[in-house]
This record gives sequence, structure tokens and C-alpha cells, in this order.
Amino acid sequence: MDTNPVAEKLGRPLRLGVIGGGPGSFIGAMHRTAARLDGRYDLVAGVVSSDPVRSRRAAVSYGILADRAYGDPIEMLESETHRDDGAEVIAIMTPNDTHHPYALAALDRGFDVICDKPLTNTMAEALDVVDKVQETGLTFCLTHNYTGYPMVRQARAMVADDQLGEIRLVQVEYVQGGKADEVDPDPTAEPPWRYSPVRGGPSLVMGDIGTHAHNLARFVSGLEVTEVSAEVGHVIPERLVDDFGSAMLRFSNGAKGSFWVTQTAAGVENCLRIRVSGTRGSVEWWQEWPTRLVFTPLDGPAQHFTPNGPGTLPPARRASRIVAGHPEGFHEGFANIYSDAAEAIAARRTGTQPDPLALDFPDHVDGAIGVAFVEAAMASTAAGSAWTEARVRF
Amino acid sequence: MDTNPVAEKLGRPLRLGVIGGGPGSFIGAMHRTAARLDGRYDLVAGVVSSDPVRSRRAAVSYGILADRAYGDPIEMLESETHRDDGAEVIAIMTPNDTHHPYALAALDRGFDVICDKPLTNTMAEALDVVDKVQETGLTFCLTHNYTGYPMVRQARAMVADDQLGEIRLVQVEYVQGGKADEVDPDPTAEPPWRYSPVRGGPSLVMGDIGTHAHNLARFVSGLEVTEVSAEVGHVIPERLVDDFGSAMLRFSNGAKGSFWVTQTAAGVENCLRIRVSGTRGSVEWWQEWPTRLVFTPLDGPAQHFTPNGPGTLPPARRASRIVAGHPEGFHEGFANIYSDAAEAIAARRTGTQPDPLALDFPDHVDGAIGVAFVEAAMASTAAGSAWTEARVRF
Amino acid sequence: MDTNPVAEKLGRPLRLGVIGGGPGSFIGAMHRTAARLDGRYDLVAGVVSSDPVRSRRAAVSYGILADRAYGDPIEMLESETHRDDGAEVIAIMTPNDTHHPYALAALDRGFDVICDKPLTNTMAEALDVVDKVQETGLTFCLTHNYTGYPMVRQARAMVADDQLGEIRLVQVEYVQGGKADEVDPDPTAEPPWRYSPVRGGPSLVMGDIGTHAHNLARFVSGLEVTEVSAEVGHVIPERLVDDFGSAMLRFSNGAKGSFWVTQTAAGVENCLRIRVSGTRGSVEWWQEWPTRLVFTPLDGPAQHFTPNGPGTLPPARRASRIVAGHPEGFHEGFANIYSDAAEAIAARRTGTQPDPLALDFPDHVDGAIGVAFVEAAMASTAAGSAWTEARVRF
Amino acid sequence: MDTNPVAEKLGRPLRLGVIGGGPGSFIGAMHRTAARLDGRYDLVAGVVSSDPVRSRRAAVSYGILADRAYGDPIEMLESETHRDDGAEVIAIMTPNDTHHPYALAALDRGFDVICDKPLTNTMAEALDVVDKVQETGLTFCLTHNYTGYPMVRQARAMVADDQLGEIRLVQVEYVQGGKADEVDPDPTAEPPWRYSPVRGGPSLVMGDIGTHAHNLARFVSGLEVTEVSAEVGHVIPERLVDDFGSAMLRFSNGAKGSFWVTQTAAGVENCLRIRVSGTRGSVEWWQEWPTRLVFTPLDGPAQHFTPNGPGTLPPARRASRIVAGHPEGFHEGFANIYSDAAEAIAARRTGTQPDPLALDFPDHVDGAIGVAFVEAAMASTAAGSAWTEARVRF
Repeated sequence: MDTNPVAEKLGRPLRLGVIGGGPGSFIGAMHRTAARLDGRYDLVAGVVSSDPVRSRRAAVSYGILADRAYGDPIEMLESETHRDDGAEVIAIMTPNDTHHPYALAALDRGFDVICDKPLTNTMAEALDVVDKVQETGLTFCLTHNYTGYPMVRQARAMVADDQLGEIRLVQVEYVQGGKADEVDPDPTAEPPWRYSPVRGGPSLVMGDIGTHAHNLARFVSGLEVTEVSAEVGHVIPERLVDDFGSAMLRFSNGAKGSFWVTQTAAGVENCLRIRVSGTRGSVEWWQEWPTRLVFTPLDGPAQHFTPNGPGTLPPARRASRIVAGHPEGFHEGFANIYSDAAEAIAARRTGTQPDPLALDFPDHVDGAIGVAFVEAAMASTAAGSAWTEARVRF
Repeated sequence: MDTNPVAEKLGRPLRLGVIGGGPGSFIGAMHRTAARLDGRYDLVAGVVSSDPVRSRRAAVSYGILADRAYGDPIEMLESETHRDDGAEVIAIMTPNDTHHPYALAALDRGFDVICDKPLTNTMAEALDVVDKVQETGLTFCLTHNYTGYPMVRQARAMVADDQLGEIRLVQVEYVQGGKADEVDPDPTAEPPWRYSPVRGGPSLVMGDIGTHAHNLARFVSGLEVTEVSAEVGHVIPERLVDDFGSAMLRFSNGAKGSFWVTQTAAGVENCLRIRVSGTRGSVEWWQEWPTRLVFTPLDGPAQHFTPNGPGTLPPARRASRIVAGHPEGFHEGFANIYSDAAEAIAARRTGTQPDPLALDFPDHVDGAIGVAFVEAAMASTAAGSAWTEARVRF
Repeated sequence: MDTNPVAEKLGRPLRLGVIGGGPGSFIGAMHRTAARLDGRYDLVAGVVSSDPVRSRRAAVSYGILADRAYGDPIEMLESETHRDDGAEVIAIMTPNDTHHPYALAALDRGFDVICDKPLTNTMAEALDVVDKVQETGLTFCLTHNYTGYPMVRQARAMVADDQLGEIRLVQVEYVQGGKADEVDPDPTAEPPWRYSPVRGGPSLVMGDIGTHAHNLARFVSGLEVTEVSAEVGHVIPERLVDDFGSAMLRFSNGAKGSFWVTQTAAGVENCLRIRVSGTRGSVEWWQEWPTRLVFTPLDGPAQHFTPNGPGTLPPARRASRIVAGHPEGFHEGFANIYSDAAEAIAARRTGTQPDPLALDFPDHVDGAIGVAFVEAAMASTAAGSAWTEARVRF
Repeated sequence: MDTNPVAEKLGRPLRLGVIGGGPGSFIGAMHRTAARLDGRYDLVAGVVSSDPVRSRRAAVSYGILADRAYGDPIEMLESETHRDDGAEVIAIMTPNDTHHPYALAALDRGFDVICDKPLTNTMAEALDVVDKVQETGLTFCLTHNYTGYPMVRQARAMVADDQLGEIRLVQVEYVQGGKADEVDPDPTAEPPWRYSPVRGGPSLVMGDIGTHAHNLARFVSGLEVTEVSAEVGHVIPERLVDDFGSAMLRFSNGAKGSFWVTQTAAGVENCLRIRVSGTRGSVEWWQEWPTRLVFTPLDGPAQHFTPNGPGTLPPARRASRIVAGHPEGFHEGFANIYSDAAEAIAARRTGTQPDPLALDFPDHVDGAIGVAFVEAAMASTAAGSAWTEARVRF
């Protein structure tokens, strides 16, 4: 558990530059901790606020040297691309509408990219990014971090290993309470970016957590959502943005699904749950108790898997740093995504073979599929919940 | 906890006759145990099989005297109605299509009725029963037994007490695995009654467990489902009957709901779960761990209520026979329905006032609303999951 | 699950008379419900209070006919022994000091006996009862009801089946909070019987719950406690009776044990837990979530057994009345003890063979071993927690 | 949650040198991850194996520059003490018998010290370290990492805040299964250090996990163990080292305790659990589900606290990096100890005031008290479990 394949391959950690995640950003600290946890990245450059003065000051407080604490993303990309010790990877954790331009700008200059979800706010933008990644051959990692949990990877691996048989049923829910009591911003003033359809995307709840739930369902089941009958909207009457999304799903193999996301369940913290059933058994996993995967086989008692415990498969074992019974959590799951991307990037940059188990991190294609799902759910809502195709065609 | 109001009011338990529930019936033993548990009924008469010989033999084995072990329901009703010590209450636990004729026959002869769910297979039949109950003034109890659990009643009481505020969200799921691996009966032969649309009703899964889930959602939330967008069908391709039902719900006050029932989740036992959220907090309850109700208030730590534990409200306390920490379960919940009905019946028959808290058992109106929901879900399915009105109008 | 072997063997339920359990008694309602639940007993006679007037009135309220609602135990035993339809079984649920005389009186008159725990207050009395049972050949059942839970029987059966290998470790705790805040009775007045060393026994907590914990450890492990190092006393300084007992245990095969009982853990309800480990695996069971038995094998993921679920063994299946996923609880566990005793009694009375699986209910010998354990724990306490032999020699 | 007080105070992270934790060491990776997680340390020097060649190679693989990858601890301490950019803090994670000499050597040269538990193998050595720390005024942190969990700190804070009232009862157990099936090393050969009484200490299980359990009981309860009646030994007959320890405890205020540690519970992972009861309520915490603290108040429903959730107190909030519902685990708890020590060290080195909430990390005095407890438990065992004083007098 001590090996550091990235450092071994490169002789050093990857050099990382960040865009976004300054003071007040919840997700910024997560990204930086994830990058730091396994020692596979050095944070060397950053622009962390749209205000240049604040950006430079905060970047220095994160340990970035003053001359690489930038005030503007393009300035940073330009500058870093010309340094011998310049950043190699750019992590983007800005408002959703800027993922598209920053990702393109970084890819155009040869940087590998790690980007927060959702990929973009529109399908057209998503396809732009997909095209650019394919054109450049660079690595693109989308931080659907919940796929980094060892027990989520165990569930996916058990499905892939046919331990559940043919998948028939998928239930996914992502229930939070953060907006249960929140007073929305004054609609006559400039809203915070999340509340702006232009900046945050067409559906607040779907961009924030709906794409996570959808991606998790795909990741565990190994299936694609092909059609959706949805109702996306708001349960707080006076609210102007979406705070809940409900859907019935049809999957590529005929399996049925249920989807339920909201941020208005008072007192609920971060309740992401999934259950997947096949002909041979069912699995259930909860993010709030992430070290447990319940497997109910058709003909035996329920089995409770734990990270690195008996019965765990290689993709799960690889995602855990510690012997069974020592809980890992959100940071480690997020770090697994970062470290897997590092493995892929370092291998490509050194012309070596990456660990194949590292290549299962979410990417630009997953991102485009997520954007297509959000668009399909909204189209279905507008059509009285009519069944609507959810697939993206490349 | 020792008082027996029925016996006190009548000077004796109520005399009970049963129709159905013979050897091989899962639900028959439940009904008889529920009737016996609190000592509020004496089982005095029965016809427990459609085969007269088997019926009489089995009825005697249940402790019924030979001369009141009948071979035919109408024979029993006629005979018992002419005895001085004749049955007063008839419990019906026969195939679904016979609920209607037996209930009418019993009501017509002055018997109070306890009937298994679903009320009937069609809306027309349901309205017949509703009319007959209203015309006769007799008591009709429908055994949606899950409403008898103390913590379900606590949840309902907390909602009624406004501890959750205005209800916004309702999730209900009833997931079983019993039909995950079951080979369906030969379609060219006479099917068991559950597999016959005529006898078991238009939708196997909806009649079996869908009506329970729907009724539980109404009971806890205190709201009615007004519209449904549903997909009811079968996930096992070769199956001819319904084994899953998925729906999005709209409630009378604008709340949103999610509904998911299936009998094909391999290895899952009897996973009935509900979560209800309002402006002040959320509750969650699971049938498989029934002594716990989780309440997450908007601004405090999660609270876990237990039967007769601190914070339980009168309707919950009334439904528990024992001090906190001594688990009660399925039988006691079922018995609560029976004993509440006994309280109502005894009070009416003696002209006394019943305990008002006893009058919250499910009845003919709940049954009709359940049948309307099944019909609406099926109509929605046929219309491509179009939103369909679910209310019954009396 | 419909069969009623007792009724089949006798052609009727056993006739039961009760001593004790009147108004205000927690345990009385439990006994009567346990007797009634499976229909294997008819409650025909009783003396339920030491006050004759109260006794007769309360007995009638329990459904006993007036002429068999007695005012004195010996009067009842005498009268019932001379009736053709007299009670066959006497259930004793009186203050602890009267178990001995009432049990002897009942056995002397040919009644089978069901008796609440502890068997007696002294070892000499316990041996008297043991001798009398052996002399008369009658059936004696001690209601260590926790051994009636299906998952406790599953644990015992798995040990007996060698699924855990050689047992090495036993942890048992019984933690309640009922006396955490209770003000003890005025020591200058006549105390309630539990608080009187003469009536309630030498150690309140050990008699109340310590004997349950000790018996459960023996039942699951299949081992005897041979030596004990204990500290029994009170944690509430001003208290005059014992409210906690702590002990280290040595078992007959060299296994080690931990024992902890108290009634002063504020807010805790009825937390009886046991964990037993052997060379091949460990099991853990909690009374407050009784439908789950966790088994951690040496080399596989944890398995969670449920009543009637996959992997349950015959002694567990026999103890459950219902399909998996429908929780049973305290009443059913208690009823299992009663119904097993009924099976044994009916078989002996009819000269037939009982179901061998029914013969595992706790009896007079278990009771004597429990009294010996209490005495050893107290002797150890008096000797500065010196290791003290805990076995009874017959 | 973004602030980095250490870096702010010093203008940079603390420079860390490590002794021990090379390839094959479980705990080495934990220490390094803990140091790295919050960015409060830079790992600049190390000697990580007793084999100089292996040490230097492995140290480089951990990112240490070649000229500071040492082959001998004293060489490292000497060299680093003479560098301008030399290490400031030394972390010791070597076999137990070397904690004493390395700690003294580091303290003598002015390094602050972070040391793995147990402090030392003997009381005399422990007092040496205590004296040296007091003499030098340097910071000494002992990694009883379980005290770093947010919910453990919440429990301690609730006790300190008198939310539990006067403490009466403490139960602690640390149950593992790692040595359930392990074949001990050949006793005729040189044993691995843990199995050597000279190197690993007088009691394998007590040094490994017994000191953690004892320290956790003290930390949460705020009380000292004053007397112990113990049985420490081995349950695997052929084993030559201790694999289980059982004890009854008496605390400074008269509270009673139960202590149970073993590494032979087959299939159990890392089951550290504690329950503490006072006059107003009880708390229970399990390491394997660390984000939950159950509080049962005397007069209200059970409350389940979560990190950063409602009701958490400042010491708990300070120990969590992320909003409620995003689980942190073992690494973060360990990192809290490291980061608290960094806060204390940086404040002392810069002459500023540390955050008072950072000063609650375990130290040399806790270590000495732990060694005294082990010695008392062993003395009690040798004296037939006689009650033995457990306090250390300084």
C-alpha cells in the first residue's frame, strides 16, 4: 500500500494547476485534499477567484508560490505552458458555465484536465469538449467522485463478474436537506451563479446532484439509461430554480429504474443510496455509511462486504489504502479519482502501460451522457413526463 | 396494558367467523393470530377452504367446534345469523375476486366485516362495498396491517401534530424478492388465483403490495394521491403478470412522491420503506426494523424513536403492549388493526363511546381509494405514463 | 406453520392456571400473551394478587370464569386438582421468594409448572425444586424467554453444528436504564418486594437481568461458566440494593468471558447483547434488533441471518411463525418457550413422542445453575473479586 | 475549512523527519498520510528501515531527497540538527522498545516528537520520557489516533459540558480477529519484534490495542482508572504471547468500568466500541461506523450526532473538514492528531497563542498512564485478578 506508481514513473509527482476553489468554495478544499492525499500531485499554480487580488492572495495561502499565483485563467495557462517546470494537469472547479471554455483552453495548450461535474451546461458544449479530447488525445477526468468509493467499485465489479446475473432493477436516490430551509436569493438582483440558469445550468438540482445519481446508476449497473419519464421542478412553491427531480428509467437491456433527487428533505444530510438487482442477487450501498456493501444473493444470507475485507474484488481492493475495519471516506474516494487520473496521465507521458484498473475513472464521455440525461429529463418534464430518449450520439 | 376494553364492554370477546385462510395460506395464520393475540375475539365459526371436506377438517384443527366448521361461506353466514351465540364479525381472507360477494353477503346479514386487501378487483365492486357499508352502518376494516405498527402511527401522529410542517416529499418503496426466481405457472393450465387477472385482479404486484405501499404513503402523510405517472409491468421477460410498478406521484397539497414496488429483487425479503419530508423535518421507517422511526428535524440531531420510548405520542403508545426496548413486530401490528376494529364494533354494539384513538384503522373508503390508485396507475401505463387522475369520487 | 401439535395430541389446548401477574405486573401480561399466542393453552384458573378481592376481580377481567378466579394459591391448586376439567399446568409469576413454595406445592399436586426466573432466591431452595421435579417426573419450564428468539436459537444451532469451531470468547451484556433516575423506596418503610433482599433475592440486578445474561451465554455457547471473578454492587451511591454487576468468566472448555449488567445506564432501554467467537467465526446478536444475527466467518464476508431466511437451521426455523422479512419479537420469543413446554407436556400426558426440537426450553436445572452463578458472583465480590467456582453440583 | 494556521504562523509547513514505517509497515503509511493530509508538514528526512540500504531506497520512494534519506536514526538526528532547513519534528514509528531511546535522542537535540503508542515498554522508560519532555519544554504527541475522530471528540465534549451528568459507567472493548487464525512464529527462532517480550513489550495485545482502549475510555469519560482487576493472557492454547485482556475497572470518581480486548475474534475486523453513561444520559460510539455518536438522554429519544451536524460542539466541529453527510474516517482522525500537534508546535516556535482546542492531543503523560495501566493489569493477573492500583505518580 506504499507504492506510488506515479512518482515512480515520472520520478516525481505531477505538477497541478487549479482554476477555481477559492475561499468559500466547498468543493475547492475537496479537490486540493484529493490531489494531496496520495502524494501524486504537487500544487504548483492556481487562479482561485475571479477577483485577481483575492485570487493571488488565496492561492499563496494554499502553498502556491507568489509568482504562480495568478489572477486570470488564460494568463495562467499561457504562463505555465511556457515554463520548463510548468503545470501538466489543470483542475477546473469553477461555476458550471466556465467548464467549457476553460477545458477547451487547457486542452488546446496540451494540459491534461480534471474537471468538476457537470461537464457543461449544454449538450453542444459537451460535444465540443468530447471532440477536443479525442482530437488532442489528452486525458480528461470528470470528478464524479462517488465512483471512487471502494464499495461502489466492489458493486460494479460484482456486476461485471456476473455475481448479480442479468440486471433488472436500479433504484438511485440522492436526497439532501441543504435547500429545505434556504431562502432563495432576491430574484431582482444578480443571483449567485448556482441560481442563474445561464451560469449554473438549466436545472440546479440536476446539475448539482442529479448527474451524480445518474452516473452512479450507470457505473454500478454497467448499463445506459435509454429513456426517461421525468418530473423535474421545485417543491418549494416560491422557488425559481429546480430543487427536485423524479424519474422513471429504462435501461439499455430492458432493466427498469427509479431516480429521485432533491435538496429539500429537511434534516437529511447527504443521502445518496443505490440498489441494483439482477437475476442472482441484489446490492445496496449508502454514501453515508460507505464502508458497507450489502449483497443479498438469491439463495443465501445477506453478505456485508467491507473495504479490503473478505470477498472484495481487485477494483475495490485497489481503491482502499488500509486494512479492513479502518474506515475511509469521502476524501479517499475523491482521491481515488485523482490518483487514477494521475496513473493514466503519467503512463501516457512516460510511454508506459498504466494499471488497467486505474482506467475506470469518469471522463468526458460520461460527462456528455450526463448532460444528455439532464436535457432528456427536462424535455420529458416539459412533455408531461412523456418517455424521452436519453442517449447521446457521438 | 392489561385492560381489555372489548371484554369489559361486552362482558366477553367478540365472536368471530372466518372465510378463507386454510392450509397453505400464508395470510390465514396471520389473521387468526392477530385475532387471538389480545384476546378480543373468539374464533367460533369458519369456512377455510373451497373444498367443503378440507374446510371442515381444517377449521376443527383451528379449534372451531365441528358443528360450526362449515363447507360453504353462505351456509356459514346463514347458520351463524340464526344462532343466539352466532358470529358477530366475519373476517374474509379469500382470493381477491371473492372479497366483493362475501363482504356484501356478510354485511347484508348484519355482520361486521374484517377483509383482507385489496378491497376488490374493480372500482365498480369497490363502490358497491362502500355503498353497502354506508347503508348498513356496520363496521368495515381492511387489513392494511402495516398501519398498525407503533412507529408508523408515531410517524402519522407527528405529521398530524405538525412536527414535520407542511409535507413536500413522500418516497415509498415495497421491494420483495419472492418472485425473483419463481417460475410462473404453466399458462396453458388453470393458474393459481393470484396469477389469474380475473381472480387475483388486473395487476398481481399492485394488488399484492402496491396497495399496501400506496395506503402507507397516505396514512403517514395524511395526504391523498391526486395524480400518477406510472409504469406497471414485468421485469422478467417471459412473465405474463405484473411484477413491478414504478410511479411518480402528485399529492393533494402539491407534494411530490416516488413509488416503487416489485417482487423480483433477488434476495430481498420484505423491504417496505417510507420517507416523508416536510418543511420542519423528515421521518423514515422500515418495516424490516420496525421498532425504529428516524426523525431528522431541520435544526437538530437525528432522533430515533422507539415504541413506548420517550417522545412517543398517544396513537403510538396505544399501539404497543410492552415497555420500550422489548420489540414487537408484524403480528402485533396486525393485531392492532383487529383490536381497533373490535373496539369500534363493541362500542357500537353496546352503545358506548369507543376510544377515539382506536378509530384510525383502514376501512372500505381506504380500500376504494386503493383500487382507484391501481386503476389510475394502469391507465397511466397504457397512456405512455401520462399523468392520470387517481382520486375516487363517492 | 398452521399446525398445532398440542391441540392435535390432546384434542384441545392445555388448561392453564396462573399464580401472579395481576394489575401493575409487567410480566403478567407477557406470560398471558405468550400462553395465548399459539393457542396451545386455555387460561382457566388464576390467583393474580395477594389480596383475595383484587385477585378475583382481576382474574375475571382476564377472561377467567368467576368460580375459578381464586384468592389464594393453595386454594386454587387444591380446587383445580379435584376438578375433571382442572388446570394441568401452573404458571408462576410471583415475587421471587414465593417461586419455591408455589412450585413445590404445584409439583406435589401433579401440575406441570412454568415459572418465572430466577428459580429461587437461595441455592438450597433451588436444589429442593430440582429434587422435586426429578422425583415427580413432571415438566418444569423456567421462562428465560430470550432463548426463545429465533436468531438466538440459530446462534446456538450454529455453535452446535460446529460452524464456529471451538468456542474461545463470550461477551454478554444486559444494560438497561430503568433505575438510572429512579428514587429508591424509603428504607424505613416496608420496601416493594424487588427491593427486599428476603423477597427479591440477595441481588436485585442479578436476579432481574443477571440470570438472563448468564443463561443466554450458556445457551448460545453450549458451555458452562466454571469460575467467576466479579464485582456486584451499586453505582448510585445512596442505593441499598445492587444495580450493576461486572464479571470476568471462565468456561468449562477454557473459553474466556465478559459479563456486564446494569439498570442504571441512562436512556438505554433493554440492551441485551451477546457475542460468541470460536476458531471458525463469531456471532453477534442484539435483543433490540432481534431479527438479525451477524456471523463473521474466518474467511468470508459477514453474513446477516434473518428468521426463516436462507441458511437458518431447523431449531431457528421452528421458532418462527412467518416468512422471512416479517419481524417477530419479544412476545413470540416468550411464546416459543410456552409452546415448547406445551409440546413436552402434551407428549408426556398422551404418551407420544414430542418433537425433539421442542425440548430445548430452559428448566429447573438451568435455574439452579443460575442461582449458583449469582451466589458465586456475590461470593467473589465479597472476596475482593477472587476467582470463585460457579458450578452447581447435583 | 480552508485555513492552514500552521502555514500561516510559520509561513510554511513544519519540516518532518520520520524514524520507521518502511515497506511492510502498516502504520508507516498511516503516519505519512496523516502528516500530508492537511498540508501542515513537509516530509523532508527519514530513516525507515533498520537496514541502511533498504532505508535509503524506501525513503526516496516516499519523496525524500536522496541526501536526507538516512540509514541510521542518530545519523539523521545529528545531520538534521545542523541544517538550516533541518527537520523540526521527528515522528517515531519503530518497534516499541526503541521509542524510548529515539524519543530521548530527538528531544535532547531539540526536536519536537510525534511517537506511536505504546509510549514505552516499561514504566521506568516512560518516566524517563516524561522527565525529558518536561525538562526540554518541547512538544510530545502520542498517536492514540482514535481520539482524533470528530465523534469521539463530541463525546468527550458532551461529557465535559455536563450533558451526561456525573459519569457512572464506562464500557470499552477493542475486538479484532487478526490473530484468530494466525500461526505464531517458531518459538525456537528469533521472533518478529511484536512477538518478543523484550522488543514488543510484556503483553502483545495490551501494547497493540489495550492501550488504545484504555486511553479512549479516559479521553471520553474525562476520568482516570484508579484500580483494575484483570485477566490478561491467551485464548489460543499453544500461543506464547497475550492475545486477550479482560478487566473490571474502577475510576477516580467511583464509576465502574468494563474492559475487553482481543485479537482472536474470528472474522471481526477492527471493532473498537465505547459506551459511557452518566446520570443524565449515555453515549455510544463504534470505530467501524465512526460518523455516528448515539446519545440516549434520560428523558428524550435517542439522538444520533454526525460530524458537523446539528448539535456538534466546537471540539468536534474543529475535527471535521467537510459538511455533514460526507464521511471522514481513519486517516482524517489520525491527521487531526498530527495537525493539532503542528498547531501546538508552530505556536510555540513562533511565540504565538495556539488554538486552545488544538491542545487536546494525547501526550507523554497519557503514554505513561497507559504503561502504568498495562503493568497494573499484568500485576492483577499475576495476583489472581486482585484489585490493583493503576495510577502513575509523577
